[in-house]
Amino acid sequence: MAKSRRSRLKVSEYKEGILLNDRMVLSKAITLIESALSSDRVLADALITQLMPHTGRSLRIGITGVPGVGKSTFIESFGAYLIEQGLRVAVLAIDPSSQKTGGSILGDKTRMEALSHNKNAYIRPSATGSTLGGVADKTRESILLCEAAGYDVVLIETVGVGQSEVKVKSVVDYFLLLMLSGAGDELQGIKKGIMEMADGMAITKADGDNTQKATKAQGVYKAALHLFAAPESGVPVEVLTCSSLHNTGLAEIWQSIEGFKEQVKANGYFDLNRNNQQLSWMRENVNRLLMEDFERNHAVQHEMKTLEKEILEGLQDAGSAARKLMQVYKRDNSLK
Amino acid sequence: MAKSRRSRLKVSEYKEGILLNDRMVLSKAITLIESALSSDRVLADALITQLMPHTGRSLRIGITGVPGVGKSTFIESFGAYLIEQGLRVAVLAIDPSSQKTGGSILGDKTRMEALSHNKNAYIRPSATGSTLGGVADKTRESILLCEAAGYDVVLIETVGVGQSEVKVKSVVDYFLLLMLSGAGDELQGIKKGIMEMADGMAITKADGDNTQKATKAQGVYKAALHLFAAPESGVPVEVLTCSSLHNTGLAEIWQSIEGFKEQVKANGYFDLNRNNQQLSWMRENVNRLLMEDFERNHAVQHEMKTLEKEILEGLQDAGSAARKLMQVYKRDNSLK
Repeated sequence: MAKSRRSRLKVSEYKEGILLNDRMVLSKAITLIESALSSDRVLADALITQLMPHTGRSLRIGITGVPGVGKSTFIESFGAYLIEQGLRVAVLAIDPSSQKTGGSILGDKTRMEALSHNKNAYIRPSATGSTLGGVADKTRESILLCEAAGYDVVLIETVGVGQSEVKVKSVVDYFLLLMLSGAGDELQGIKKGIMEMADGMAITKADGDNTQKATKAQGVYKAALHLFAAPESGVPVEVLTCSSLHNTGLAEIWQSIEGFKEQVKANGYFDLNRNNQQLSWMRENVNRLLMEDFERNHAVQHEMKTLEKEILEGLQDAGSAARKLMQVYKRDNSLK
Repeated sequence: MAKSRRSRLKVSEYKEGILLNDRMVLSKAITLIESALSSDRVLADALITQLMPHTGRSLRIGITGVPGVGKSTFIESFGAYLIEQGLRVAVLAIDPSSQKTGGSILGDKTRMEALSHNKNAYIRPSATGSTLGGVADKTRESILLCEAAGYDVVLIETVGVGQSEVKVKSVVDYFLLLMLSGAGDELQGIKKGIMEMADGMAITKADGDNTQKATKAQGVYKAALHLFAAPESGVPVEVLTCSSLHNTGLAEIWQSIEGFKEQVKANGYFDLNRNNQQLSWMRENVNRLLMEDFERNHAVQHEMKTLEKEILEGLQDAGSAARKLMQVYKRDNSLK
């Protein structure tokens, strides 16, 4: 703890380092943001506020797909392709499993090795936290830091199971769903809700014997998309195929994403989406802070013990208990 | 408003009426619970607290299914069947659409007519509210009142789209999913997540030409259930067929539900589930009360205007804004 506090820089040092794209400083700043220490939080807030004018200029792309779809291989080759186009690429991850293990899908394995050695790439293992919302919020702040450091594209990886996609969707401009060409049961592996969130889809591993199957799957997905409501963005969802093995289809995917960006910038959805994301994150943060403050309150903790006992004995209802706790909380706050 | 306040009874009058199963008083009490007036809330809390020792003895059954599956026809015939078995049956509904219209799926139509005239049945249109959580919470409290009035079974209907199932699941002991026998695409209409929540499934309209299709669908669903994780309850999910037209299959469904109840009472899941439901509802109520109090705060409202403007100008981050608002809220509370 003492060590970690000693290794903190001054706000101005973080700021300068990040604006010069010193990747060591960027990493330290992300560590600062992920810290649970309240002194670190004050520092992180000051840093983000100072960096705000330098943020917002990247294209934020979420990438998801079921395990085995080849997300990291795709990100490795797609990232390399973007760098070849003269862009600088940051890769972050939202990984709910890291909440349990404290580890990270990206950190645990030696993945994306080529990309991680490229001076125009920055790869950061996923944040940890006690809630998925918390993890996603750290990711959101990490995006801002990467943007201040001058990255043109930020790729945010998620593990393709359950709620993490909703969180990724809430921090990105474009959401890419990677799909496998399966044996006729293409639609079973992925939840309909996740397909509905996608701004674009790509069938991976479209190479060798798999090429024909991938094209067939492409047709199936295109047809399935017709069943959905028109996307909020106003831009039709494209379904493409690609091979990370042969680096094919990557240019088409990027072209499709750039086309999306142009259209949503023109029709106003790009700004609308970002603004709505910010406002709902503010609300989510308020909610979390309120609950944290509530649960830390000693008077509340004391009363909670009694009420929980009464609830489990069937003598107290959840609603009345909550209102009693609220009174205790308000009274205690007014005494401070 | 004045009129509605004048029509309030005393807590003791509500209590006596409910314990005598005076359905008029029960209806008035549910109206009291649904009221947004804070004076009504105080009264409702007192009433629920006094009734708590008389609650908890019903079997709470959630019933869902896509529109067209025949939920109300099923509830009508299933309710009549239960009454024939000597049971008293209450029917409530959670209807997210009523949030918008202020109306109710049950109230809008002359449905369940036979059941509504039976003296051993009580039918209440769905509660309205500003959030689905709020609506579900009123439903939860209505269940308690129905239990105090001596109903043995409370059926809670939901409309089978999206989030309302999660809420119903959080107030019931048993969750029944009604399904249609479709043309081979049985699995497409319903979300996998909803199937995973079901404690039991029934294929409706298993009559006439449809009988064979229903049996086939039964097989498909049984097979599909093997793909899911073992249910938390520890009781395997049964898939049955029924016809509300011919009143067939109803006895088997009730037998299956009773079997479930016996097993979860024996293995401890019944109590565990109810306790967990109460504790998470307490948390949800606290959360709602905190947010309401926060949003009502004038100092917060004032600061929010400035911060939202800064956010939309890209000068303020959602996280810092939330922390600033929190400081304003705490400071203002300490002055009261």
